[in-house]
Amino acid sequence: GQLFKVAVLPGDGIGPEVMAEALKVLDAIEKRHEVKFERTHANVGGAGIDLEGRALPETTVNICKAADAILFGSVGGPKWETLPPDEQPERGALLPLRKIFGLYANLRPAIIFPSLTSASSLKEEVIAGGFDILVIRELTGGIYFSQPKGIDGAGRDRVGVDTMRYSVPEIERIAHVAFQAAQKRGKKVCSIDKANVLSTSVLWREIVINIAKEYPDVELSHMYVDNAAMQLVRWPKQFDVILCENMFGDILSDEAAMLTGSLGMLPSASLAEGTFGMYEPSGGSAPDIAGQGIANPIAQILSAGMMLRYSFGMVEAADAIDNAVAKVLDQGYRTRDIYQEKAGEKLVNTKEIGDAIIANL
Amino acid sequence: GQLFKVAVLPGDGIGPEVMAEALKVLDAIEKRHEVKFERTHANVGGAGIDLEGRALPETTVNICKAADAILFGSVGGPKWETLPPDEQPERGALLPLRKIFGLYANLRPAIIFPSLTSASSLKEEVIAGGFDILVIRELTGGIYFSQPKGIDGAGRDRVGVDTMRYSVPEIERIAHVAFQAAQKRGKKVCSIDKANVLSTSVLWREIVINIAKEYPDVELSHMYVDNAAMQLVRWPKQFDVILCENMFGDILSDEAAMLTGSLGMLPSASLAEGTFGMYEPSGGSAPDIAGQGIANPIAQILSAGMMLRYSFGMVEAADAIDNAVAKVLDQGYRTRDIYQEKAGEKLVNTKEIGDAIIANL
Ligand SMILES: CC(C)[C@H](C(=O)O)[C@@H](O)C(=O)O
Ligand SMILES: CC(C)[C@H](C(=O)O)[C@@H](O)C(=O)O
Repeated sequence: GQLFKVAVLPGDGIGPEVMAEALKVLDAIEKRHEVKFERTHANVGGAGIDLEGRALPETTVNICKAADAILFGSVGGPKWETLPPDEQPERGALLPLRKIFGLYANLRPAIIFPSLTSASSLKEEVIAGGFDILVIRELTGGIYFSQPKGIDGAGRDRVGVDTMRYSVPEIERIAHVAFQAAQKRGKKVCSIDKANVLSTSVLWREIVINIAKEYPDVELSHMYVDNAAMQLVRWPKQFDVILCENMFGDILSDEAAMLTGSLGMLPSASLAEGTFGMYEPSGGSAPDIAGQGIANPIAQILSAGMMLRYSFGMVEAADAIDNAVAKVLDQGYRTRDIYQEKAGEKLVNTKEIGDAIIANL
Repeated sequence: GQLFKVAVLPGDGIGPEVMAEALKVLDAIEKRHEVKFERTHANVGGAGIDLEGRALPETTVNICKAADAILFGSVGGPKWETLPPDEQPERGALLPLRKIFGLYANLRPAIIFPSLTSASSLKEEVIAGGFDILVIRELTGGIYFSQPKGIDGAGRDRVGVDTMRYSVPEIERIAHVAFQAAQKRGKKVCSIDKANVLSTSVLWREIVINIAKEYPDVELSHMYVDNAAMQLVRWPKQFDVILCENMFGDILSDEAAMLTGSLGMLPSASLAEGTFGMYEPSGGSAPDIAGQGIANPIAQILSAGMMLRYSFGMVEAADAIDNAVAKVLDQGYRTRDIYQEKAGEKLVNTKEIGDAIIANL
């Protein structure tokens, strides 16, 4: 059998609780397939700060370096909100992890399950039958990481500066990810830019058009970011794969995720070149419900599924996880966040829905 | 009586049709108040390109310079979409106008009229009773205008660069606009930034907090732009005034506008220091319905109202316009874009709804 090394970073809030369910699912996969997941736990976020003095301790980085993939929970909470931005759990852990491991391709599905359309703040008629968008966000370039960045001068003479920079190879590699993803789905890529204002966007659009020629089976369209923010609200079903630079992807992937109405259901993958990747729920650490055993572990479980799919090439096992989640929802199992007091729904806790998913594997 | 000079720039598509109604409203105001609006028409956008060779002809700039305010229609259309970005009607007219006239404060109301809640793609329960958001967007700084900006190098070695820069005075003056606007409304400002990633945002947040001290009656909160994109969808009523830098304001004001479901209803103002300003509908030139006399002129009429309010200090007349529009909607008058085939609705054309508004002044 095969052996995969997983760095397990549960983090803060509901992170450890939902991670426990994802690890149970990995146990179940081990029993069904010729595979072993060797897991090493490490501190990150607020837990990193409290136990080792920083959001991303060096031990954690080393554990990740020794691993084939990172399974990440969620970080942050009121306790650490007064720290300087650089040291806070989210920013202080996520940005360095992305940079150190070259996690340039962020895949964020925004899927609305047909049985959960009523959780969305959009009208039934707008989302009838659900929708299925995959946002592909460039994650290691653009205004997040380019130099110069900083505040110069003193007092009222201070000036803040950030730089958005993209090179051709940076655009090419993320465009390939988008077109290849589209080939396996709805065969449409909508590339987002602001080419009427930004030079990076002019280059972005030109390069994306070039790369598209290698994927004649995929239909390419372009949309300005302001229009995309509108179109997502107006008619989300028009989208299949949405391709964005880093900042636009941050904004639009969150908007798309919220449109589903079930943040607790959405996984994400951040991929490096090769097979290394980091996998984490799209939602936050939900400190308000932490420790009560009632959080929704589905996003964490689906994140483990993405890890099997993208880092370990275990497509069948990944499909099995996705299908088990869909079945459990069809069977009416609901954690509190998605419970709507409808006939056929069974209100369950974190462990119970985890068990139900495993029973359906 | 007073004399105000208005540069009238109808532009393309439905621009001239809806402008005609706004000018009728100005006529009506002249009859009711001791005031004269001296109007000079000028070409802009596609009309500027076709008749004078560029989106913002020099004659047009001079007419605007001689005026007390600019009443702008809308620009753009398929005919000019293949021009280089810099020369296209929208970008080629709007960005230079903003820069030349120092139009640093963009006010974009996103109002959902209680009688039109069903036009929104949001559920009735999310928007019951309507909502009323005012987005205040910095309009002459940030990543739109800062240097360096461009594409360097050749072939695959090319690199695109844009710069986001903000100085303290730039942040201070737009913050004052937001707090003063909030004082006249719901007394809340939510300042949008990405202070966990951007240095400009760190400075932005610090300066906004400072300025807030001068407005103790206004409640200040802060939100990251990605979260704001979510919160607008989740619960738009939580917002009163939203304060943004240029790019974030572009995205969020469009998202908020689309949430109302009635883009044809939303005016905007772009203000310089002093009383000069430019006033225009938030929607586009709608080339698909141009020339048919069926476009909704309300956004253009409300834009004229904003001109009276902000550039001419005619608060009473501006209120009268706002009230007349509300009354006409209550009376059931609907252009095609807002017609929902409900009992009590009267489907009317551009001229008819303009006349109805004047009758209610
Ligand atoms: C925490 C923050 C730095 C991060 C980002 O902006 O990328 C987060 O919003 C995300 O989307 O993962
Ligand atoms: C046309 C474009 C340059 C402009 C902008 O981005 O500011 C438009 O989207 C707007 O919001 O007025």
